[in-house]
Amino acid sequence: MSLLVEFEPAGVVVLAEQGASLLDVAAEAGVQIDAPCGGQGRCGRCKVRLEGDVDGGGPLRSRSNARLTPEEVAKGYTLCCQTFVEASAGVRDGKERQVTVVVPRPRKKRLRQLGHSEAQPDILRGHGEWQKEPAIRTETIEIEAPSLADNTSDIDRLARELSRQCRVPEIRMPLDVVRQLGHTLRSADWKVAVTLETAEFDHDARLSPRVVAVGPAHPARGAYGLAIDVGTTSVVAYLVQLKSGKVVDSTGAYNAQIACGDDVISRIVYSQRGHGLGRLQQLVIGTIAELIDELVARSAIAPTDIHEVTIAGNTVMTHLLLALDPKYLREEPYIPTLTTMPALVAGQLGLKTNPQAQVFVMPAIGSYVGGDIAAGVLSSGMYATDKLTLFMDVGTNGEIVLGNREWLICCACSAGPAFEGAGVTCGMRATTGAIEDIWIDGGTFEPSFRTVDDGAPQGLCGSGLIDVLAELFVTGALLKGGRFARGLDTPRIREGQHGREYVVAWGPETEIGHDIVVTETDVDSLLRAKAAMYAGFSVLCRSVGVDIADVEQFLIGGAFGQFINVEKAIQIGLLPDLPVERFRFLGNTSALGAYIALLAVDARRQVPEIAGRMTYLELSADNSFMDEYTSALFLPHTDLDAFPSVRALLERNGAAGEPPAAGDHPAAEADGSAADGSAADGDGELAALCATTPEVAAGAGDGADPTR
Amino acid sequence: MSLLVEFEPAGVVVLAEQGASLLDVAAEAGVQIDAPCGGQGRCGRCKVRLEGDVDGGGPLRSRSNARLTPEEVAKGYTLCCQTFVEASAGVRDGKERQVTVVVPRPRKKRLRQLGHSEAQPDILRGHGEWQKEPAIRTETIEIEAPSLADNTSDIDRLARELSRQCRVPEIRMPLDVVRQLGHTLRSADWKVAVTLETAEFDHDARLSPRVVAVGPAHPARGAYGLAIDVGTTSVVAYLVQLKSGKVVDSTGAYNAQIACGDDVISRIVYSQRGHGLGRLQQLVIGTIAELIDELVARSAIAPTDIHEVTIAGNTVMTHLLLALDPKYLREEPYIPTLTTMPALVAGQLGLKTNPQAQVFVMPAIGSYVGGDIAAGVLSSGMYATDKLTLFMDVGTNGEIVLGNREWLICCACSAGPAFEGAGVTCGMRATTGAIEDIWIDGGTFEPSFRTVDDGAPQGLCGSGLIDVLAELFVTGALLKGGRFARGLDTPRIREGQHGREYVVAWGPETEIGHDIVVTETDVDSLLRAKAAMYAGFSVLCRSVGVDIADVEQFLIGGAFGQFINVEKAIQIGLLPDLPVERFRFLGNTSALGAYIALLAVDARRQVPEIAGRMTYLELSADNSFMDEYTSALFLPHTDLDAFPSVRALLERNGAAGEPPAAGDHPAAEADGSAADGSAADGDGELAALCATTPEVAAGAGDGADPTR
Repeated sequence: MSLLVEFEPAGVVVLAEQGASLLDVAAEAGVQIDAPCGGQGRCGRCKVRLEGDVDGGGPLRSRSNARLTPEEVAKGYTLCCQTFVEASAGVRDGKERQVTVVVPRPRKKRLRQLGHSEAQPDILRGHGEWQKEPAIRTETIEIEAPSLADNTSDIDRLARELSRQCRVPEIRMPLDVVRQLGHTLRSADWKVAVTLETAEFDHDARLSPRVVAVGPAHPARGAYGLAIDVGTTSVVAYLVQLKSGKVVDSTGAYNAQIACGDDVISRIVYSQRGHGLGRLQQLVIGTIAELIDELVARSAIAPTDIHEVTIAGNTVMTHLLLALDPKYLREEPYIPTLTTMPALVAGQLGLKTNPQAQVFVMPAIGSYVGGDIAAGVLSSGMYATDKLTLFMDVGTNGEIVLGNREWLICCACSAGPAFEGAGVTCGMRATTGAIEDIWIDGGTFEPSFRTVDDGAPQGLCGSGLIDVLAELFVTGALLKGGRFARGLDTPRIREGQHGREYVVAWGPETEIGHDIVVTETDVDSLLRAKAAMYAGFSVLCRSVGVDIADVEQFLIGGAFGQFINVEKAIQIGLLPDLPVERFRFLGNTSALGAYIALLAVDARRQVPEIAGRMTYLELSADNSFMDEYTSALFLPHTDLDAFPSVRALLERNGAAGEPPAAGDHPAAEADGSAADGSAADGDGELAALCATTPEVAAGAGDGADPTR
Repeated sequence: MSLLVEFEPAGVVVLAEQGASLLDVAAEAGVQIDAPCGGQGRCGRCKVRLEGDVDGGGPLRSRSNARLTPEEVAKGYTLCCQTFVEASAGVRDGKERQVTVVVPRPRKKRLRQLGHSEAQPDILRGHGEWQKEPAIRTETIEIEAPSLADNTSDIDRLARELSRQCRVPEIRMPLDVVRQLGHTLRSADWKVAVTLETAEFDHDARLSPRVVAVGPAHPARGAYGLAIDVGTTSVVAYLVQLKSGKVVDSTGAYNAQIACGDDVISRIVYSQRGHGLGRLQQLVIGTIAELIDELVARSAIAPTDIHEVTIAGNTVMTHLLLALDPKYLREEPYIPTLTTMPALVAGQLGLKTNPQAQVFVMPAIGSYVGGDIAAGVLSSGMYATDKLTLFMDVGTNGEIVLGNREWLICCACSAGPAFEGAGVTCGMRATTGAIEDIWIDGGTFEPSFRTVDDGAPQGLCGSGLIDVLAELFVTGALLKGGRFARGLDTPRIREGQHGREYVVAWGPETEIGHDIVVTETDVDSLLRAKAAMYAGFSVLCRSVGVDIADVEQFLIGGAFGQFINVEKAIQIGLLPDLPVERFRFLGNTSALGAYIALLAVDARRQVPEIAGRMTYLELSADNSFMDEYTSALFLPHTDLDAFPSVRALLERNGAAGEPPAAGDHPAAEADGSAADGSAADGDGELAALCATTPEVAAGAGDGADPTR
């Protein structure tokens, strides 16, 4: 039996099949319902209210309401992903049953406009390596009209003139271009502009040029390219005039796949549903289409003037973009279908550019270190420097690359999304109202903060979370094990519903109407995230026998990275205690790498080679990782010698990581050796954590993530 | 306003837009209506009967009923292509109007099963040139399963083993194959059969092999190929097991495009209608799909086991197959979009094979000499022989190639479709009941004949028409100018409705219920066709300074050709008067060429070179053509010295081309110099004929034509 289901406020009515979840039904009906956890019943975001004929044991049954309050359940709320159409659904007392699903209006999310000041042709000169030479060029030729005496075919006639006038000895022309050729040549009166792609960059660069467009010579249209960073959270595109290399415009938007899961694991889970993979592909292609629409409208060009596309993204994102099943990325031993992407044209993906535009996808290093990192290494120039360099891309996870022109080694840290606000009580992305900077008074523990767009506070984004941890720690409110000090004279530290917490903002001053807090559980999550990252640095350095202190430059990529306060990140032990001048923020290195590949064919040829040079270190297979991780679960670290500047600061503050009132902190923490109570609950959990590491690591980095 | 139109017996109702022809409306509605003339109102085959609300000046208006009898018009018959929806169509007296179009049931057409005895691997040895080396090979490999220690991507792992085990250093894999790879490798437990195409044959043979399929190693499936001859009238396909080269099966069917026009000009006309080009492409792809269905069902293989396709066809057919606009083939100076076809895969055309199967389309020589002739030259071996060879492909038109290993020159004769039965009173294709052989008694003028499948006679096919002309001529019933002798004592020659005629079969003995006749007008049409062909031989030979008599071998291709009685064809002057042993019938040389290209990659590489060597002679631009044509409008020719065997025969018969009763034939004919009265009505018509020559010639040959 099937059941009539109406979605409000969309006003869509569909016939739902028995056994389908409401989430599936909504997807079929084209009604967007966010399910950041991928429909596993874990996030509670797919909450809807049911109306109509829903009483009396059917026609819908909910498997779990764990994420709902009793009040919500009483009001008829349910989780879409956990609510299924029953076998007996369709008819009751001989009447067809109908259910109305009221979908709460989502809060509007706006991605802050991302600048592109760093993306300019002179980036090619940064390493003195790349010639500005895009793959696309346009030749204007005049062709003698055919006659009975010279009845050469249209394509051969065109090829002959390209050879004569432009020294292009041979061409290849795709069928779609051939189909237009006869009309175009004649309507343009045999004076045409031919857009050529000089070579493909698959495995073989010996091919003759490919004709991607033939149009009238006057008015000659410019040839444009698109450099795209496809992140798990957001997608950023630069529109580039290929001849000058100038970034004409740029824009960004949230990746519409967010509706199917916040992180890559949830997306992989979603991809395994029926049509899931196709839908994920369509969603990200749709996001890119929106960006293209916006860019071409503002620049007054035609979408078909875009003749070349380069894309960087993590391995899961590129698999989904190409509709490659990401299933095996998540299953041990975590194998990608491919790392070097095949030669593609835009039409194969449904991109709204010239369908013949070549799409160059940055090669990945492995399942957990994607093309975004290859792009980062390219744009950072670390592959060409003599300096011992550590490059880190901060996103949902952190990917780290260590090395120089001689060698490169990389790993992915299963940092998890805590610094993006996920799994943290009042965490949020860096949108309007997110607290991004905090200072806490060392005497009163009163905070002062700044929010994104100066909006009324709604929560804490990544940089705010780093700040609040650091400030609480250096003021002595938070102990090195992650517990709040007891006996401090402040109403800001209190016993909350879920244990002790610090109140960052009181309800009345917020947008959300309730207190914004950081709980000890939140601190635990953040410590785990930073410990994973720091353990990554440590293990990577040790694996090649260098000391973290020897790192000559520490490059931070990812839009998020730009907003990190380095000193505070060192104070919590997220970054190593190096002189501040060694740190450099590179911005969206993934998009920048795609931009370089767009401008310099030579870079595009060499990036697979660079990616091939990178040795991947699997942290979960490294014996020392758990030790390093456990040591890093403290603020800033068990080995305070490794953090001399923090030690000095704590000594100045008279705290040195010790609680101001000794009797107040948990006994386990006092000896400073057992992290059990604070961060990991013994070997069992450590082992479990270790086991999940690769899975989370498969999330790879999200270079474009604007969270901070 | 739009009008409700119902088609019967299909039972389809559509809303027809104002201004649309009923032919367009039917096409939109998917109702097949034959329009052999392409919808020009010339053939009368799209006759339908209208019912319903059709009186009172609307809602349909007919532009021309020239092809209908007054009785038919009175009964409500109209021509679909000439009947249009009027502006005021939709409503009458406030009521919606509806018209019913009754489509007469078409007579069932069946294509006689075509043999493939000549297509076997030893054809490659015929010229001692081609190695049997198909582009497709299958390698079976076992791959080590991945592990954390060796987490190479699926594709690189496959490539590594191909390199190790099969010395394939590099591969290219299309996205669609990549998409299945992860599942296939694991479900096959890492033991797979990889089908590789060794190279593409576009402009560049230096590419690494392309993976067209990956499947489980057991059971290993064979790799098959398909050699297709796409003719204007019929499509023939050979299913070939690539490893052995064996033709497993073959089949043929009428090209479904016939519904849109009998000849290439009508098809070009049809292609210029809205969606016409797309429909023509779909029709021929549909015909090929039927052939594939039939072949795979009989051979118990899967369509996806077909990994390679080669196609030969005339230039219009290949343009339509690829949905290339054929418009400019018809307009002076008759330019094809291309002659060498781009690299294609089956999925691009919608062919029902492995979508990754490469489709190799035989290169054309020009607008009028197509890939079917290139295939013919390939399979005839004339490009490699020392002997002076004349190759002729007999179809709707005749293409002629003259030359040897040193040089090749070709032309297309605008013979027209008379020998296929078109434009001839009782002409028909070589289907059941077609008269194919005739003997006429020299005393009584009574005929005896044989029909296809021994069916009751329905008309005359090509070989029957040649026979009847020759028999009438050598018995003295038909004079050399094409007029029937007068005063003969036979009821078979009489004055008919359209002038004098010879009755081949009386009504009661036929299937059709009326007399089967050959009229003087029919003889005119046939003389013109044969004159065009013979003039082609003459001009081609003269252009290179050789005498027709010097031709050492005369090769006849085309399924039609097989059934020609050489002696009778010489008697009417269709073929030159060479010793009979110099003639050789090669069968369907177009399909054979496609078959060779399928088996030998080297042949496929060289055929563009062979095509490139062929000089095209444009007959309409040759000054001597009209003279040669005029001289050849007689039986067998004005120059009887060129036909010594015919002269001898006539002398034996005591006729020598002179009428038995001198006073009976038209005066103009008596002096033997003026053809005006018999074949061409003076200079005006000759000029007009000349002007139409290239247009008809664009029809090129139809090597697969089973008409005879």
